[in-house]
Amino acid sequence: MKGVVMRHILRSQQFNRTDIEELFKATDTMRKAFKSSLGRVQFRPRLLGKLMFTIFYEPSTRTRFSFAAAAIHLGMRVVGTDNAREFSSAIKGETLEDTIEVLCQYLPDVIVLRHHEAGAAERAALIGERHGVSIINAGDGKGQHPTQALLDLYTIKQELGRTDDIKVVLGGDLANGRTARSLVYLLSKYKGVRLIFVSPPELRIGGDIKSHLIEHKVRFEEETFLLDALLHAETLGRDIDVVYWTRVQRERMENPGANFGESYRITPEIMSHLKQDAILMHPLPRVDEIAKEVDSDPRAAYFRQAGYGMYVRMALLQEILK
Amino acid sequence: MKGVVMRHILRSQQFNRTDIEELFKATDTMRKAFKSSLGRVQFRPRLLGKLMFTIFYEPSTRTRFSFAAAAIHLGMRVVGTDNAREFSSAIKGETLEDTIEVLCQYLPDVIVLRHHEAGAAERAALIGERHGVSIINAGDGKGQHPTQALLDLYTIKQELGRTDDIKVVLGGDLANGRTARSLVYLLSKYKGVRLIFVSPPELRIGGDIKSHLIEHKVRFEEETFLLDALLHAETLGRDIDVVYWTRVQRERMENPGANFGESYRITPEIMSHLKQDAILMHPLPRVDEIAKEVDSDPRAAYFRQAGYGMYVRMALLQEILK
Amino acid sequence: MKGVVMRHILRSQQFNRTDIEELFKATDTMRKAFKSSLGRVQFRPRLLGKLMFTIFYEPSTRTRFSFAAAAIHLGMRVVGTDNAREFSSAIKGETLEDTIEVLCQYLPDVIVLRHHEAGAAERAALIGERHGVSIINAGDGKGQHPTQALLDLYTIKQELGRTDDIKVVLGGDLANGRTARSLVYLLSKYKGVRLIFVSPPELRIGGDIKSHLIEHKVRFEEETFLLDALLHAETLGRDIDVVYWTRVQRERMENPGANFGESYRITPEIMSHLKQDAILMHPLPRVDEIAKEVDSDPRAAYFRQAGYGMYVRMALLQEILK
Repeated sequence: MKGVVMRHILRSQQFNRTDIEELFKATDTMRKAFKSSLGRVQFRPRLLGKLMFTIFYEPSTRTRFSFAAAAIHLGMRVVGTDNAREFSSAIKGETLEDTIEVLCQYLPDVIVLRHHEAGAAERAALIGERHGVSIINAGDGKGQHPTQALLDLYTIKQELGRTDDIKVVLGGDLANGRTARSLVYLLSKYKGVRLIFVSPPELRIGGDIKSHLIEHKVRFEEETFLLDALLHAETLGRDIDVVYWTRVQRERMENPGANFGESYRITPEIMSHLKQDAILMHPLPRVDEIAKEVDSDPRAAYFRQAGYGMYVRMALLQEILK
Repeated sequence: MKGVVMRHILRSQQFNRTDIEELFKATDTMRKAFKSSLGRVQFRPRLLGKLMFTIFYEPSTRTRFSFAAAAIHLGMRVVGTDNAREFSSAIKGETLEDTIEVLCQYLPDVIVLRHHEAGAAERAALIGERHGVSIINAGDGKGQHPTQALLDLYTIKQELGRTDDIKVVLGGDLANGRTARSLVYLLSKYKGVRLIFVSPPELRIGGDIKSHLIEHKVRFEEETFLLDALLHAETLGRDIDVVYWTRVQRERMENPGANFGESYRITPEIMSHLKQDAILMHPLPRVDEIAKEVDSDPRAAYFRQAGYGMYVRMALLQEILK
Repeated sequence: MKGVVMRHILRSQQFNRTDIEELFKATDTMRKAFKSSLGRVQFRPRLLGKLMFTIFYEPSTRTRFSFAAAAIHLGMRVVGTDNAREFSSAIKGETLEDTIEVLCQYLPDVIVLRHHEAGAAERAALIGERHGVSIINAGDGKGQHPTQALLDLYTIKQELGRTDDIKVVLGGDLANGRTARSLVYLLSKYKGVRLIFVSPPELRIGGDIKSHLIEHKVRFEEETFLLDALLHAETLGRDIDVVYWTRVQRERMENPGANFGESYRITPEIMSHLKQDAILMHPLPRVDEIAKEVDSDPRAAYFRQAGYGMYVRMALLQEILK
């Protein structure tokens, strides 16, 4: 990001390793200063009076609050709606482009957009660019959710101290889950990354991702059961650093037997096979795919992950609105 | 509250008489300063830059606006949702504990929570406590709504000048109404309080409340018709100080005849039986259980009651976030 | 507005020519200062700390954001809801008057109200007046939407440089469209205004408007097809200055044949019949009654119109809250 003006946050691919390093340094600085006694006071003026619109075509209160809190901690004002589908309702039918065009007329500094169609953020950015208004993609359908991928990577960096030479299990519904796919793209930029995909056969990671990994020479394996992956790894020296877990919706499995479903649930017993400095991540919300009793395990990093997310978003806002 | 740090507002019972006295003094100060020409300017800095989340699992725009306005008048920022059920929707299913844990990661100073399950606020406070985030119960199902009870008591104090030695009629749906029940608990702390419960037989106040009153030696009677209570009182010297009225939903009555329903409607005729310095209260919203023509009666205190509520909430915020 | 305190914005008719001139001057000043590098900084303090409630009984995110952004650019705080029908839901049933009375107790400076019933804003203003709280009508059913009419007129002034001696085509659903009707009322205050109404026979402008125009000696014609109006005008010297277009809902037409529907769609071909300094306006949202290809025509003024709208609202806020 050095020297280059980055106006919009649309896809994880727009960040190269140097961009990411700078972003993570800025995030570190933000966290340190903010947690010090004078933190909030020091930060407030940086983006004082700037205006954020949060435009959510599908409700995601968690993500909306993360962005709104990030903005407010930096001194910004926020106007938002969970109800943006009203723009494009049958009666009032308006294109996304028209909606963004009108919103830009109200002179926000940034529009955080959550939309149900892949590519929506990029379409919005074409409009925003003309008005000098930044667009942040907060998830567009099956497309991208770049701030989630960045916060996932930051969590690994923060918790393990590195993003090279790591072995990562990604598990759950890898066919439909947006977060695991995006993280894989980011991880493929790093050296010595090894991946193990764990999912029911019908929910395997897509061929596009596998091609991408082969092209970037990232080693990966596929397993059906987490325990197999863990025991296999154990023989190699308990070498798994990260378990990134997501939900398998039972209705998507072909054989959703009780025992089978249980295989996609992380329990203290499962945790006992992980080494002491490994971490367990999850994009949240968690339903029952991680047992509540795991929460007290210091390796359970999923709530800290949500917290890092807000700081990553603060750093991004400061970068694009500076 | 002197000397003791009070972090959360969960139940009316957490306040003893001294706490309440101090809270009411702080509320008085707030009102006086705020109403003076420089009021708003003087207040703004007290909680400047603090952040409130309003998390409402069931919409209650009235209560949400009261808290938001209280916060804003004190210089705070507010991010809110009426749509918090989305957190725990069938698809995304997340426990209240997880939701609060994630929201705390975004570093609010206080979370105002409205939930449909009794005990929700106490569960949330267990999480908030770990993060130094205050939780305010803005109504949890059939459980508590402590700021409502406090504002009701403040209204009595303010309008009558005292909270001891008062005779209070509580009427309407006493079986299901949360507000009347909570107020009774608070009133039982005071001396010389006498209560008359007025309700259809099937909507009588619960046995738990009666036991509580007997234990605390609070005198009470039960009547089916308000007019009987008033005429009876009249012979004793028109001694009723407060009529606290709530709605009887006709569908809950066993004999919802037109005349019967009319008995639970306050009219100018009914008001003529009350003494000049009595007051009529109502938690609002009012439907037709108080005739519109009563509004111009100076004893109709229900709108002032809503106004006092905002000041009580300002005083509480200042207390717990100081 | 000179010398007179104008507290509420309820109907376009409350503004005389002098008021409008002053409002437009204030809007010009606002735009110039705001667009300069120091603009935002200079403006912020004017209404610093004032509080706006946006109370929308029917969602209109576009209008709500326009008011909220206007307020925030002036330093105000905003609390809002799209969900105000909850106030008057079957279960909680509360009159508009009670709702406004309660909201005024929370000490906002202004309430922006969108309601489904004509006359709602005037009823709200009777309550607001008692509390010194301004009410702004942001659309009440088939009634008024005065800030829309003012921004439409400001757009004409700004784009053409005058509001006298203009020829305006108003087209689309003139029977049900609130915006075209309101604009006609405002235009009738000016000299040398000539109107051409274009609509399917069943969606003609109302007799009340025609009587008003006759009384005020404003010349008008009626046509069924825009092309006829344009070609007719062309023989008179391509004298049309403004085309104000709105949507015809096909289900409201008696003969909604494809070709007929096409006649109510503005295309580049239609634009070719307009003179170079004419403008095309639309209250938005636009569905397909203006072809997307028209957007790049410099005469397409509809998005600028939305932008002017925010400034007009800023000027109004500054006027009524000064």
